[in-house]
Amino acid sequence: MAAPAQNLKINGDRLWDSLMEMAQIGPGIAGGNNRQTLTDDDAKGRALFQTWCGDAGCSMGLDSMGNMFAMRPGQDPDALPVYMGSHLDTQPTGGKYDGVLGVLGGLEAFRTMNDLGVKTKHPIVLVNWTNEEGTRFAPAMLASGVFAGKHTEDWAKDRVDAEGKRFGDELKRIGWEGDEPVGARKMHAMFELHIEQGPILEAEGKDIGVVTHGQGLRWIECTVTGKESHTGSTPMAMRKNAGRGLALVTELVHEIAMKHQPNAVGAIGHIDVYPNSRNIIPGKVVFTVDMRTHLLDKLNDMVAEFVTQAPRLCEAIGTEFSCEIVGQFDPPAFDEACVSAVRGASERLGYSHMDIISGAGHDACWINDVAPTAMIMCPCVDGLSHNEAEDISKEWATAGADVLMHAVLETAEIVE
Amino acid sequence: MAAPAQNLKINGDRLWDSLMEMAQIGPGIAGGNNRQTLTDDDAKGRALFQTWCGDAGCSMGLDSMGNMFAMRPGQDPDALPVYMGSHLDTQPTGGKYDGVLGVLGGLEAFRTMNDLGVKTKHPIVLVNWTNEEGTRFAPAMLASGVFAGKHTEDWAKDRVDAEGKRFGDELKRIGWEGDEPVGARKMHAMFELHIEQGPILEAEGKDIGVVTHGQGLRWIECTVTGKESHTGSTPMAMRKNAGRGLALVTELVHEIAMKHQPNAVGAIGHIDVYPNSRNIIPGKVVFTVDMRTHLLDKLNDMVAEFVTQAPRLCEAIGTEFSCEIVGQFDPPAFDEACVSAVRGASERLGYSHMDIISGAGHDACWINDVAPTAMIMCPCVDGLSHNEAEDISKEWATAGADVLMHAVLETAEIVE
Repeated sequence: MAAPAQNLKINGDRLWDSLMEMAQIGPGIAGGNNRQTLTDDDAKGRALFQTWCGDAGCSMGLDSMGNMFAMRPGQDPDALPVYMGSHLDTQPTGGKYDGVLGVLGGLEAFRTMNDLGVKTKHPIVLVNWTNEEGTRFAPAMLASGVFAGKHTEDWAKDRVDAEGKRFGDELKRIGWEGDEPVGARKMHAMFELHIEQGPILEAEGKDIGVVTHGQGLRWIECTVTGKESHTGSTPMAMRKNAGRGLALVTELVHEIAMKHQPNAVGAIGHIDVYPNSRNIIPGKVVFTVDMRTHLLDKLNDMVAEFVTQAPRLCEAIGTEFSCEIVGQFDPPAFDEACVSAVRGASERLGYSHMDIISGAGHDACWINDVAPTAMIMCPCVDGLSHNEAEDISKEWATAGADVLMHAVLETAEIVE
Repeated sequence: MAAPAQNLKINGDRLWDSLMEMAQIGPGIAGGNNRQTLTDDDAKGRALFQTWCGDAGCSMGLDSMGNMFAMRPGQDPDALPVYMGSHLDTQPTGGKYDGVLGVLGGLEAFRTMNDLGVKTKHPIVLVNWTNEEGTRFAPAMLASGVFAGKHTEDWAKDRVDAEGKRFGDELKRIGWEGDEPVGARKMHAMFELHIEQGPILEAEGKDIGVVTHGQGLRWIECTVTGKESHTGSTPMAMRKNAGRGLALVTELVHEIAMKHQPNAVGAIGHIDVYPNSRNIIPGKVVFTVDMRTHLLDKLNDMVAEFVTQAPRLCEAIGTEFSCEIVGQFDPPAFDEACVSAVRGASERLGYSHMDIISGAGHDACWINDVAPTAMIMCPCVDGLSHNEAEDISKEWATAGADVLMHAVLETAEIVE
């Protein structure tokens, strides 16, 4: 298959205008977006996307999880489609680019192909996955998870939001439940463009991150139990301070991650202290350890070290430690041919690039289990995401969409 | 002045019955009490106390902060009264003895004096201080604080509860605002009997704690500022994890307290983590350090060491540390003659005793600034207090009230 011509480039201004137009729907309170899944604003965003796809000559498929599939036909009726896409839903105080760039970057690729009359052997399908964020209906990547067979559709539709509303009911209510069975589609390959949501590319001055792996993840919910007692009248020697257990385990997590460099990470983000009163020694602290790395053996070693050491540290100060794994995700290794297509496209287009591990979860991480998959990342300012101040430059967006288009076209095979 | 006779003892059963009867008012949900200050139940408790004091032949004074003063007359019209007492208000999930023992122990002393026809040179006054707990209207020890000139009455009356109700309005509403100016009374001495609210006396097998000092206190509200970022996509070397700042400072507080043994204590009871999400590295942690010891110089040394070391530890991991003192209370040293009276009474009555530092704040700590003062402590089971499961034995209550009566009678001078 021939590589697309070096001078084949998307229209960065047009891409940027579409990003800004989409951002008008479900504006945030601080310059970002609140377009949470299955809200009225989600429906408006979907309608705009559908209009744009229709204008670009695509037909639209819709499955029963609300996943949208805009197809640009290929020349070979037997060739499986090449997929690209991401998600249009946002965090409650989200940015304008997380997910959206991957969908509208794909749309811009379609528009450019149309402008230049590019034809491909394989059809190309642009996807908007439902509920990637998982904030309103946990877990994240819900609909791509059903597509990849990670969850049953019934289970997914029974997820409820904070007001007790069911996912299935809300999907019906906004009018975006389709008839197509979820996961019935077969894919030749899948590419997802996404902002990095981390600081590496910007710090290294690279235009493109060639994503080779995702981080595997373990969430370990821990409880340190001490004894609630008065901060004034309990002598030091008689204390069982669960807060000290938290302190020792915080440093343990850090040390374990540092021992497994590069790429391993570990931290505690969520902490509940009981009773959380200025003059009462914490009797109990509940917190979740987040450990990640991109190799399964290494991840298992980190967890094993943690569950051995944490109880010892806590017992040594008179407290008890218990834990359970409440979230896990084995590290995906993306398809070598797809990754090469991304790396080759970056090279051919003259964009600086580096291999990178995706720290966050993405729809592509689930799809990787059912089709050859890769991801393209572009930098974001200061690594900031899940925040209304999330920002990227037009140049970064353009480079990302260029590489997406090239990788997709090379895989879909341009025909004359 | 002559010591009271060794066989002069209070009636432990009668004391216990009164404790149980008072506990019927404002019962908790788990066997304790919810008789918060200036509630209807507080008013009922006050009325019962007033009836009992009237039955014991006392006149009742009431000041404009609602402090109640039941007087048993003395023989010398020029002699200043000897005071005793504590508080009848409780925590929302409080016990039956915290405060109440000190008031009803004093009432039992009056009843015993009446039974035996004991006469004293000095009048004896039994006080119920308003709002010692400070849970509904912060701060604690509010009315004794006004009495001792620590707060103005106007400021105290403007304190509001969680529903926005003013202390002054609620005091009027329950009908217990008196005409007497607050703090106008002069005292010959003041004794407060209280449960220990700590585990020392029970662990040491002592009936009586002879309280020589209170702990001085500093509450230092600290903020560690890092950078909120994704737990997965932020490399270890680029993190500014405010949670690690908390961990390092937690251990620093512990080390400083251990360095200043005996009696010094330090801990962090209240912690707020921002944004407190499993997959976001804490960008900010706000917490309050509680440091106490019974000598002012030592307390100042502890704080100085803390404010020097904490910023260094936090800066070394790329985070910023700031703090301010939000609560302070210099350590009271109780009056030597009053403390000797308590120690002597314990000895004479054959109760095992030890000198002890009060870890918690008490009305006596404020009154100590305006009159010779001392405290008597009795054990409580497992050191538990501010908890409905708070418990003491009838024997401990009896011993405490016996010692209170003896110390008061020796100071008030029995006349034949």
